[in-house]
Amino acid sequence: MTQPPRRPPRRYEYETDGAGIYVRSFATIRAEADLSKVPADAEKVAVRMIHACGQTDLGRDLVVHPGLVAAARGALRAGAPILTDAHMVASGVTRSRLPAGNEVLCLLRDPRVPALAEAWGTTRSAAAVSLWGDRLDGAVVAIGNAPTALFHLLELLDAGAPRPAAVIGVPVGFIGAAESKDALAAHPMGIPHLVVRGRRGGSAMAASAVNALAQERE
Amino acid sequence: MTQPPRRPPRRYEYETDGAGIYVRSFATIRAEADLSKVPADAEKVAVRMIHACGQTDLGRDLVVHPGLVAAARGALRAGAPILTDAHMVASGVTRSRLPAGNEVLCLLRDPRVPALAEAWGTTRSAAAVSLWGDRLDGAVVAIGNAPTALFHLLELLDAGAPRPAAVIGVPVGFIGAAESKDALAAHPMGIPHLVVRGRRGGSAMAASAVNALAQERE
Repeated sequence: MTQPPRRPPRRYEYETDGAGIYVRSFATIRAEADLSKVPADAEKVAVRMIHACGQTDLGRDLVVHPGLVAAARGALRAGAPILTDAHMVASGVTRSRLPAGNEVLCLLRDPRVPALAEAWGTTRSAAAVSLWGDRLDGAVVAIGNAPTALFHLLELLDAGAPRPAAVIGVPVGFIGAAESKDALAAHPMGIPHLVVRGRRGGSAMAASAVNALAQERE
Repeated sequence: MTQPPRRPPRRYEYETDGAGIYVRSFATIRAEADLSKVPADAEKVAVRMIHACGQTDLGRDLVVHPGLVAAARGALRAGAPILTDAHMVASGVTRSRLPAGNEVLCLLRDPRVPALAEAWGTTRSAAAVSLWGDRLDGAVVAIGNAPTALFHLLELLDAGAPRPAAVIGVPVGFIGAAESKDALAAHPMGIPHLVVRGRRGGSAMAASAVNALAQERE
């Protein structure tokens, strides 16, 4: 452009104050959503997840382990990495909210992934989870895309992989998503978790949960 | 890690073939979703958007301009850039599906943005839209986060900005989202558009629409 941009004349009536939009959004959610099933310390997490998807009935499907918030907050403050299955989740994590400059890691494009997926007869998303290796120890895991990544994680844990501090399990979709989240919620190790039952989920929900856990302030 | 990763023993029954997951997902969507309101050439776009959010009732709120698919496909084949309000949308665009190595551009972190937003009394998302400048001409716009970005775009067009080829308008949320999408659908210039009425929307939906428009093949 040859000229600096100019503000166009206002033609519509709408809220333009970023902070005000957040405040009014969260107030609308609290007025409409039934969050009675959510642990008290997870209320802000639920509100931010509803904000990310625009659906106040999300609380119906949200299951938050009673130890999830304390475990995830503690791990993040102590510098734990955030491990995720999708670059969109990593992109949605607001770095300025992270309490310890925490690493946000998605290994889906690691050069080892295609060959591992083929050799193992699984998806690239699942193979990439295996590459987390020892970084799983005490990490906050956020799975927002692939049911196969979540199933693979549970199988790694069963095989003796290091234990993460908390698992946000919100893969989305029609094939395996609901089942993978049920499996996480029922997993015998009882790792602190958050799931959205059923088909709903996705990278925005996963990132919003991480963002709410990273900082108490809204 | 000191050792190459091993595939953990399979503990759960689930589909692990990536291509098979897509095929079965899309078949489930087509069996369940009512897409009778969607233009015939936009059926794959609707299916992919439903896939992204896990909700087969999305067709109820989906409004696709009759010229949208042809305009967006033609523009992308001709090398048009994809302009978006959110890095998550840009992150969700599958580069290998783009027909002409199209540029995917989000200017939210442009160093000029904070000062413009403050001077204009608007959000950073809206200010960043002004920086698209002449690149708007013939572009495919995908707004998946901020209602203010969509309102600002319409105001720019009213003020004589170059005309994009197509606008995917799916901001999400509680304050201004529904209104901004109604405004796009009612805009007098009649630019080919796609909106999801109401509060639903988001970066995954926006990216999935772009991905479906980029390639006919599923």
